[in-house]
Amino acid sequence: MTVDERVIIKKVVEEVVKRINGNGEEAYVPIGISNRHIHLSQKDLEILFGQGYKLTKMKDLKQPGQFAAKETVKIIGPKGFFEGVRILGPVRPETQVEISLSDGFKLGLSAPVRESGKTEDTPSFIIEGPKGSVEKKQGVIAALRHIHIPPTFADKFRLKDKELVNVEIDGIRKLVYHNVLIRVSDQFELEMHLDMDEANAGGISNGDLAKILKG
Amino acid sequence: MTVDERVIIKKVVEEVVKRINGNGEEAYVPIGISNRHIHLSQKDLEILFGQGYKLTKMKDLKQPGQFAAKETVKIIGPKGFFEGVRILGPVRPETQVEISLSDGFKLGLSAPVRESGKTEDTPSFIIEGPKGSVEKKQGVIAALRHIHIPPTFADKFRLKDKELVNVEIDGIRKLVYHNVLIRVSDQFELEMHLDMDEANAGGISNGDLAKILKG
Repeated sequence: MTVDERVIIKKVVEEVVKRINGNGEEAYVPIGISNRHIHLSQKDLEILFGQGYKLTKMKDLKQPGQFAAKETVKIIGPKGFFEGVRILGPVRPETQVEISLSDGFKLGLSAPVRESGKTEDTPSFIIEGPKGSVEKKQGVIAALRHIHIPPTFADKFRLKDKELVNVEIDGIRKLVYHNVLIRVSDQFELEMHLDMDEANAGGISNGDLAKILKG
Repeated sequence: MTVDERVIIKKVVEEVVKRINGNGEEAYVPIGISNRHIHLSQKDLEILFGQGYKLTKMKDLKQPGQFAAKETVKIIGPKGFFEGVRILGPVRPETQVEISLSDGFKLGLSAPVRESGKTEDTPSFIIEGPKGSVEKKQGVIAALRHIHIPPTFADKFRLKDKELVNVEIDGIRKLVYHNVLIRVSDQFELEMHLDMDEANAGGISNGDLAKILKG
């Protein structure tokens, strides 16, 4: 029997079990894949690009008000570096770089899996821009996988802000991600964020759908 | 109804009954993480390293008889290359390079997720060695995640060769991999193989334990 046939059998079994167990309506969420990127404070932006500097929008991101800037920087760790790391705007109160664990091996540092903004006791690193460089004492994270959810969708599927859910990805590399953080805000568009490692482990492309499994 | 269809139906019924009945003791398996590597035929080895060439063992791998060779090659795709790609020995009937999907992006090719040895209709690539180079018409795969299992362990946990199981990884990046291929042989040591993308998506280090979930 081929792998394809075995995959078909698994899908049939799952469908049978689902029908036996019964199900309500299912919550599907489009996936956005994040490559390594950096958020800068205005202070660091000015050190790197010059006094009074403002970011130039290259394109809007799906989350309202967020954008990919034209500007990039070089990120340097103890063992390696990445050039052309995209800056995401607008500026934030604190500088934070988000990388995959694979990126961490290349840089020679161990990025903890964290919620955005939780940068206490994370590794130090250096940022180089065209006008200067900054040595940050902390600020490297691997983003905790999460889903941006507007309140209407949250209400419909009884999802709560800060809840952790499981999320199923279908296909030959089918998997279920646990510990996926729900974030609810009327500022959000519906979107699940994964990094490159996570996307590739599931054979996922931008815009693929994830199914939320409650616990 | 064809024989194949009756076989599939029988397997589905068995699987449904198994899931309804539940399971006994839990099967844990140590994880081995595979970086990109290549298996060479003797013919290709000789083109790359010279007539009559034999691989030099650098270290034994966990699977009996398998070893990492001292020799490495350069792998070239349409958009990029990797130098220092480790050759795993002994030589095989067919040359095959195993990469992650991340590696595929760098090379500029799309590696299908396959069982080892199933290289029909996979991308072409170039191998460079110190004495020559080979253009392969096919042979790039992303390995289907799998578990090597000796017969005693398979019997104890009622695992069958070529069965697909689910595997749970614990931790902050807890997840469940589906479509994990079981391979049973008295030539095998107990070990689950994941690539770098898959390991990082689960926050997994070499030697971490995976729990087999039947269905």
